[in-house]
Order: sequence, then C-alpha cells, then structure tokens
Amino acid sequence: MAPKEIYIGVIGAGGVGKCFLSQLESLSKRYATNASSPKLSLVLVSRSTKTLYSEKYTSLRFENLSTKLAESTQKTLSVTEAIEFLAATPAKAILVDNTSSQDVADQYPSALSKGISIVTPNKKAFSGSYKLWQDIFSAAASSGAKVYHESSCGAGLPILSTLKDLVDTGDEVTKIEGVFSGTMSFLFNSFAPLEGSGGKWSAEVTKAKELGYTEPDPRDDLNGLDVARKLTILARMSGLPIESPTAFPVHSLIPKELESVSSGDEFLQKLPQFDSQMEETKVAAEKEGKVVRFVGSIDVAKKEVKVGLEKFDRSHPIAALKGSDNIISFYTKRYGANPLIIQGAGAGGEVTAMGVTADLIKVIERLS
Amino acid sequence: MAPKEIYIGVIGAGGVGKCFLSQLESLSKRYATNASSPKLSLVLVSRSTKTLYSEKYTSLRFENLSTKLAESTQKTLSVTEAIEFLAATPAKAILVDNTSSQDVADQYPSALSKGISIVTPNKKAFSGSYKLWQDIFSAAASSGAKVYHESSCGAGLPILSTLKDLVDTGDEVTKIEGVFSGTMSFLFNSFAPLEGSGGKWSAEVTKAKELGYTEPDPRDDLNGLDVARKLTILARMSGLPIESPTAFPVHSLIPKELESVSSGDEFLQKLPQFDSQMEETKVAAEKEGKVVRFVGSIDVAKKEVKVGLEKFDRSHPIAALKGSDNIISFYTKRYGANPLIIQGAGAGGEVTAMGVTADLIKVIERLS
Repeated sequence: MAPKEIYIGVIGAGGVGKCFLSQLESLSKRYATNASSPKLSLVLVSRSTKTLYSEKYTSLRFENLSTKLAESTQKTLSVTEAIEFLAATPAKAILVDNTSSQDVADQYPSALSKGISIVTPNKKAFSGSYKLWQDIFSAAASSGAKVYHESSCGAGLPILSTLKDLVDTGDEVTKIEGVFSGTMSFLFNSFAPLEGSGGKWSAEVTKAKELGYTEPDPRDDLNGLDVARKLTILARMSGLPIESPTAFPVHSLIPKELESVSSGDEFLQKLPQFDSQMEETKVAAEKEGKVVRFVGSIDVAKKEVKVGLEKFDRSHPIAALKGSDNIISFYTKRYGANPLIIQGAGAGGEVTAMGVTADLIKVIERLS
Repeated sequence: MAPKEIYIGVIGAGGVGKCFLSQLESLSKRYATNASSPKLSLVLVSRSTKTLYSEKYTSLRFENLSTKLAESTQKTLSVTEAIEFLAATPAKAILVDNTSSQDVADQYPSALSKGISIVTPNKKAFSGSYKLWQDIFSAAASSGAKVYHESSCGAGLPILSTLKDLVDTGDEVTKIEGVFSGTMSFLFNSFAPLEGSGGKWSAEVTKAKELGYTEPDPRDDLNGLDVARKLTILARMSGLPIESPTAFPVHSLIPKELESVSSGDEFLQKLPQFDSQMEETKVAAEKEGKVVRFVGSIDVAKKEVKVGLEKFDRSHPIAALKGSDNIISFYTKRYGANPLIIQGAGAGGEVTAMGVTADLIKVIERLS
C-alpha cells in the first residue's frame, strides 16, 4: 500500500515543466477520487529566479500556477534549500527535476540520502562523471529512496524500463543500436531519404533550424554530445562503467574550420562550403544501395560505444524511420536474430512529461 | 521498502513454466546477496496431476525441481487448495500461473480477495467474460493484491505496460493496430513477402506447421481467436467494455467447408482446394502496390475492434515485419501522426517467461 500522502516539489517550469504540471494536476484529481491512492501535495515549484512554496506543507493550488510563480515574492530557494525544505515534509517527498541543469543534478546524492526520491528527464546526472552515477545509486540504495529517469533517453518511449527488465530478468544484452536524436533523425531522413534525392546538407540544416528542430545554435546538435549522453546512460545500465560521454568515439558533424565561429548564424552561412563532404558520404552509401544515418551503438561484449555515421540497407528499420522519430533496437540472447525494437517521437514537451509522470506513478507505487 | 520475505507458488511447469523457474532461480540468488531485497521462498510448484509443496513454508530447493515434481508423492492440490495453501503463508504470497487454463483463471478473484497477488501470461482471465475481468480488478482493488499480466499479449514485449503508462498519464489513445500472432506473422511474411512472390497458401501453412510455428491443429491459429483475445485485453485496458473475444468481427482463415473436418492433418490435405481464395486476395493487394497482412485493430473513439486481412503499403512497418515477429502501433494524441511502435518476438518460452519474471519483480517492489 502506498502512503496516505506524498509531497512533491518541482524544479523547472519551462516547456517540459509546464506540460508536467498539467499532467500532475490531472493525476492529483484522479487520485483524489480513489480511496486507495495517496493524496499528492504539490508543496514547491521553482524556476531559475523564482520559488513558490507552501510553508505549512499544504498543497499549492494548480489554478494560475505559472502566473503565481512568476509573481511570487517568497524568498528564492537555492537547490540545496529546496532539498532541505522537501526533507522536512511530514511524510515521503519526491523531487521532480524538469531542468537540464548540472547544478541540480549534482545535488541528487544529497537529496536521495535524505530520503527524497527523484524523478527527472535531466540527462546530466546519469551521463556526467561515473562517480556521480555511483554516488546517486549508492545513496538511493542506502536510504531506500527511488530514482527514475525514463525521459532522459527517448522522452516517453519505454527505453530505459525495457532495458532494465531485460537486465533484471537475466537476459544477455549483446548490442544496442539506434537513432537517438530527433534532430539527427529529421536531418538524415530529409538529406538521404528512401524516396527522392534530398537537398544539400547545409540547406537541410537551415530548414531544420527554421522548423524548430534544432537548438538555437545547430552545432549543439551536430556535435553529437546529446546522443553520446544517451548512449552513456544505456551503456552504464548494461553494466559498462563508461567514464563520461567523451570517453568513446563521437563523430561530430561540425567541420573543424567552423568549430570556433562566433555564432550559430555565422555557422549556417559558412556551412555550404563544406557540403561536398556530406554529399560524398551520401553518394558512397547510395552506390552500395544504402542510405547514411547518424546512429549510436553499444557492443556490450566488446565494451565498445560509438556515435557517428553508418550505412544501412534500404529495408533496415533505421533506414525507414520517418520525421523526427527515434528508433532503438535491443539485440539480446533471448530475442535472437531479430531485435526488440521501440520507435516513435523521442522529443517534445508532452511526451517527455509523460515519461516523467509515468515514472512519478511508479515511484509512488513503490513508496510505503 | 519491500517485505523481508515473499512466498511464491507456481502453477504450470511446461514450456513457459520451466523457463520461468530457471529465471526465478537466478533472481532468488541475486536477491539473496542484496540486503535490501526480500527473501523469495518458492513454496509450491504444480502441474496437471502433480504438486510439490513445502508444508512448513520453507523454500523448496531449485535443484532437480522438475524431477522432484514428477516424482512427488504429496497430495495433488486442486487450484482451490493451492490458493488456500498460499493464503496461509506467514507473509505476502504471489501466485504465478504459467498455464493457459480457464479453470485456474476463474479462481483469480478468489485468490486476489485473499490477498494473494497474481502474475501470469495466461490470456484466459483477461479475455474471457467481461464479468470475470471486473471481478478480478475489483478483488485486487479491495484487498490491495496486485495482478500483472504483461505476457498475456506479445510475450515479453512491453505492450501492456506501455499502454498502461499512456492511459495513466492522461494521453488519449485513438487507435491500436498490429500483428499480434507470431504464427500469422510468419505465414504472411512468407506468403506475401516484400521480395519475391511467396508460395501457395496451403504450402506455407504446411511449412509453418512442420517448423513448429503453428498449434498441432493449425486451425487453432487460423481461426483468429488468439489474436481476438489479445485485442480484447488491449481494448479493455483502453477503456472499452468488450464483452468477449467473440463480440466483434474476427475474420477466420478457415474455409467454411473445412471447419468441421475431423483432424488437423485432414484439414492440411484439403486446404489446397481453397488456395485460389487467398491467391486472389494477394494479387488484388499487389495490383495496388501493397501486401496483405493479418492484423488486429482497435479504433478507440469509434469503439470498433476487428481482426482480419488488411492491405498495407510496402513501406509500412507492418509490411516490413520479419520472421515471426509481432508489431504493435499505438496512435495517440500526444504522439501525433507517427505512432509509438513496439516490435520483436511475441512468442517463445524464454521471452514469455521474461515478461512473467519482470512482472514478478514489479509486484515484489510494490508489496509492503
């Protein structure tokens, strides 16, 4: 049986945070009508410079929450102070970190050791130093607090939960391979499509930026670090003690000459000068009847992790991906020649928040 | 925190049951080395005419368990007696039903009301009468016992857990579509392949039987009931009160004239006389540049469930399926135009047992 009341603090009220708060409102209402569900009390919401909290631990009301947060005149709590506030709640507390902040991530071991469970889409905690990873999970094991982070890889897609089930039930994961970035998926599905010939590389990058599929500076996607972080998480969950997301080969798609130009705009202006490199790669794949894609892979037995361009047969599920979808294939001893595949949108506020809310439910069901 | 000791009874020691017992042995050993995990005590194993149980509730040993069960001279317990035995354990008990028996399924409400949690791949309980479904979940809600049945649809593939997450977090599932039968997948991937022309229908059915992909009497696959049962489960989880697996259109691939022939062998002998029907369907699809597949679908808004032949574009993920894989697409409001797709082996002892073991872990983590 879950406890009668659970206290929730939410850090981050941006894109994912707003979607999450809306899903939390619905969940709280549903739980309130079910006698066997605990009361969910939202007692803290914060964003960079503002904090709204309930000093007597009564639940904040969801109506106009973002306005109330924006207009809050309460003392702005630091992450450390927010954790202390949650540690002092009269019953179990859960911290939902909807930021992508390293500073918040660094405080997870402290929160967990105080018995505060954590639910988050923040990749930084699980893909930073291996020491932080170890500190997080040993703090959780000692205190019994839970830490769930499904949305740190593939948003709401059931990637981490599936990998956990495979590992926990004793399957032998031999290889994980996939397209882990919505931006890279969109770029390559347009640049080297199965039907038609696609545009020039620089034109596709410019188009992706205009459509909002890239970070403000597209180099933050093209450097491959986002994919490397996700691979780091999956590799560690598979038992490989990967030191950091820069501890294995990552093929950056930023031409060396453009690494240090001052802005994303200047980068896009100069990128056409380097189109021939990507064009050659595309044509080389076509000559083999294949298409080029930007993938990450983990060979568990060989302990090899890598991120970069690979060629795929046109009938391969990775080649047939659409839009900005992610696809992840788990090759395991039990599943044999054909992998277990999960595919779908791997980014976006609502689906990322969905992974967070689903994790929140799983944590609540495990607290007692 | 999970309880210190959990008692487990296992009914069914055939293909899935044997794989499960092997996975349970590994899990028990792993838990024994972890101070925060409960002790798992296997106190009962039974198959049709034999029962092995520990009268003082000490754990049975895993060594030579099937031999000991086969040679057991203990009183054979009925399902009712096995439930009473588990209800009398000194702490929480879990019944693992690895049969496909309706008789065992009918006893779930009784077991749950006695506080015994249930983990099972048995479809019968969840796809039989709607009253049984309601009785099962209301008994669980009253007693706090858990009931998990991931492997009742798609074996170890994360189908039901994903649907549950979508529904629980407030997404609107609009449509579910897929290939839910390994047998049907194999038959149609061979009969109407993307490359080449495939053999005659009756020849493919005979080949599938010889390779062990069908039931002893292939009509038990071709009637579509297995797929209809899985659709019933998914539809009910999506909120549709489907009365039974025969309450919606199911296209049987058994020619009317062969429904009542006396044996599977006679059926296979006479099937070639009806090849022209399937051939016409295949050719009609080819003329549209498509391939024919045997699929199930649920239109949640229209409350329509159906099972039968459909035509798919050659680039559709359902058309590109391989071997005997299953594929399930969830179309939802949050996921938009491109569905969330899960694909892989949906049958087989090891992967079915994996779904059972993963569920067992989830139940243990939720008991207190």
